[in-house]
Amino acid sequence: MAVTPASTSLDSFDLDPAFALHRGGKLEVRSTIPVRNKDDLSLAYTPGVARVCSAIADSPELVNDYTWVSNVVAVVSDGTAVLGLGDIGPAAAMPVMEGKALLFKEFGGVDAVPICLACTDVDALVETVVRLAPSFGGINLEDISAPRCFEVEDRLRDLLDIPVFHDDQHGTAIVALAALKNAARVTGRSLSDLRAVVAGAGASGVAVSRILLEAGIGDIAVADSKGLLHLGRTDLNPVKAALARDTNKGGHTGSTESALAGADVFIGLSGSTVAEEAIASMAPDAIVFALSNPTPEIDPAVARRHASVVATGRSDYPNQINNVLAFPGVFRGALDVRARTITENMKVAAADALADVVADDLTPDYIIPSPFDARVAPAVTAAVAAQAQIDGVSRC
Amino acid sequence: MAVTPASTSLDSFDLDPAFALHRGGKLEVRSTIPVRNKDDLSLAYTPGVARVCSAIADSPELVNDYTWVSNVVAVVSDGTAVLGLGDIGPAAAMPVMEGKALLFKEFGGVDAVPICLACTDVDALVETVVRLAPSFGGINLEDISAPRCFEVEDRLRDLLDIPVFHDDQHGTAIVALAALKNAARVTGRSLSDLRAVVAGAGASGVAVSRILLEAGIGDIAVADSKGLLHLGRTDLNPVKAALARDTNKGGHTGSTESALAGADVFIGLSGSTVAEEAIASMAPDAIVFALSNPTPEIDPAVARRHASVVATGRSDYPNQINNVLAFPGVFRGALDVRARTITENMKVAAADALADVVADDLTPDYIIPSPFDARVAPAVTAAVAAQAQIDGVSRC
Repeated sequence: MAVTPASTSLDSFDLDPAFALHRGGKLEVRSTIPVRNKDDLSLAYTPGVARVCSAIADSPELVNDYTWVSNVVAVVSDGTAVLGLGDIGPAAAMPVMEGKALLFKEFGGVDAVPICLACTDVDALVETVVRLAPSFGGINLEDISAPRCFEVEDRLRDLLDIPVFHDDQHGTAIVALAALKNAARVTGRSLSDLRAVVAGAGASGVAVSRILLEAGIGDIAVADSKGLLHLGRTDLNPVKAALARDTNKGGHTGSTESALAGADVFIGLSGSTVAEEAIASMAPDAIVFALSNPTPEIDPAVARRHASVVATGRSDYPNQINNVLAFPGVFRGALDVRARTITENMKVAAADALADVVADDLTPDYIIPSPFDARVAPAVTAAVAAQAQIDGVSRC
Repeated sequence: MAVTPASTSLDSFDLDPAFALHRGGKLEVRSTIPVRNKDDLSLAYTPGVARVCSAIADSPELVNDYTWVSNVVAVVSDGTAVLGLGDIGPAAAMPVMEGKALLFKEFGGVDAVPICLACTDVDALVETVVRLAPSFGGINLEDISAPRCFEVEDRLRDLLDIPVFHDDQHGTAIVALAALKNAARVTGRSLSDLRAVVAGAGASGVAVSRILLEAGIGDIAVADSKGLLHLGRTDLNPVKAALARDTNKGGHTGSTESALAGADVFIGLSGSTVAEEAIASMAPDAIVFALSNPTPEIDPAVARRHASVVATGRSDYPNQINNVLAFPGVFRGALDVRARTITENMKVAAADALADVVADDLTPDYIIPSPFDARVAPAVTAAVAAQAQIDGVSRC
């Protein structure tokens, strides 16, 4: 029964501006139409609404024209891999999912609803999202731990005809690809010239590695907490085993740091650290993306002594790799053309559009635009929508 | 692939003002906090949000203070009993659920999210709502067909510690009880003086009958499509069988119309019709609630020839029995005190508060306030919150 009244102990939390801002939550649902009198009510609700329901029953695609479904995305989590906090459960994940929903609206004009689920089993997650799907125009999966996240997304993509997008994977991958393309350009190279080392084989590490392979990177070696993935490892889950087959042409074994000797690119997505000596051992014009948040794998100022380009996940250093550069425009573009899925080409198109925003302003400290650059979301939106048409997954 | 572009054939729908109003849907999600720059972003999202998540992980009840959960209700339907349209499925149900969500906000300041589910099995519905529950402060069930709706609600009430309320049952019951109390008063009687006949043993018929029994009505006979419920019927589902045991002291058999001879009250919740002769056969000062929508069981002007008080579900006749008089205030009151459930007493308190709004303005054509009477929601809210405290189900 006893919850402390808001007027007493919560005040101590509210000395922290993050708590003060979060008091009462960060979202609301509002009507977009007037309900001032009984005439309004008779159109928005009974009896007028019945005609709209009947029309949708006869022609199901009309749900996209006469309800909010075609503009609303479910931000779905089970709370098992929240930020760097790990498995904190659905209730504690809610502030992140609310924040995500807020960003969807602010940056993409997409209505989004945070849905934190009290289940973690893959079958249960898939089943629940399939049951929810009639209410939404897209599904953004968030903070579901690896390797379950891969199977959940794969199965939902097969089962649903609306976009399903695990942002921890693909949002990060799109922004990292955009940044790496510009980092290569500013150092006079192309992706195919580069040998990269990725620390981390969770959701983001796998997805970043996959998109870089598709984009034609020269070679890539991926490490999990036990070291580099290679064909001799017998302890790999199927996702990592597949990655071991498709990466590490050099046949490196051992640690991330040993593989960095002579490498062109380091991408940290692990929450671990990397020593300055290892960064110093990289090839000339090294590119370092130390993306763990809030603590990068290496201090970016230290990395910059040895690398030509350094990016982090933080807003207080140059070159912030921030998913908000991608997901609002990706969904906006997909929803605008009622795409039935988000293809790999659409993700690459998003990355290219994002890289192109930088254009001739490119410098080593400006390889990726700011999240508050108003050109970003429209550019990503247009590229994703156009690619959906090209790929034949658009419905209008 | 082919959805007709909005610019052509949809225009013909939009000649109907209900369709024009529904274009693009009726709801949006908005941020309640500013996100103007990276400082805002660092509090609303990473890294600031992590501190809020950690606090909730440590003290789960803080989810009610620092997220929108404690103000947001899921409006859940499976689309099996939508208005008078029947089983039209989850997509076609969406306009109604959006409308309901809109009314929650407009009349109760409650944020509400329409959730139309692609499952109809009782176990699946219960399981899905339980999984969704961490994201919501309450569950409003809507337009789920009887008798499944009774089991769905009962099981969810047992499993969840947030309010679960099937509005088709209890919203209707609250408003009907309020109206009947005032109808009795304006005709100089009390509930215990009245013998009622209820046509309809679906969600609303059962719930109205139950609340009238609890409120001490003299007697009540309930009819389904096959006639009056009585102990000799062998074709009754468990809910109807229980109602047969608790009603019909007079042992009536046969039809609704036969039972109306000498009855004081008729309450129609069946979608069927009742003949003028049957209404004429009722006792003096008869009370007729012909609540089927859009077509009342009997024309209210015809009924008024024989009855002292007539109410309908329509806004274009006096005495509209409209659920919007109840559910916004019921949830507002329950959420305000973080009630773990909605008790029977809270429903009766809501009805009493609603009846009391009419006060000394009571006439046969004014037994229930207008949905647009600004006194309604605050009165219901206060009564429900106070009763939750008395019943010991409040958490603050």
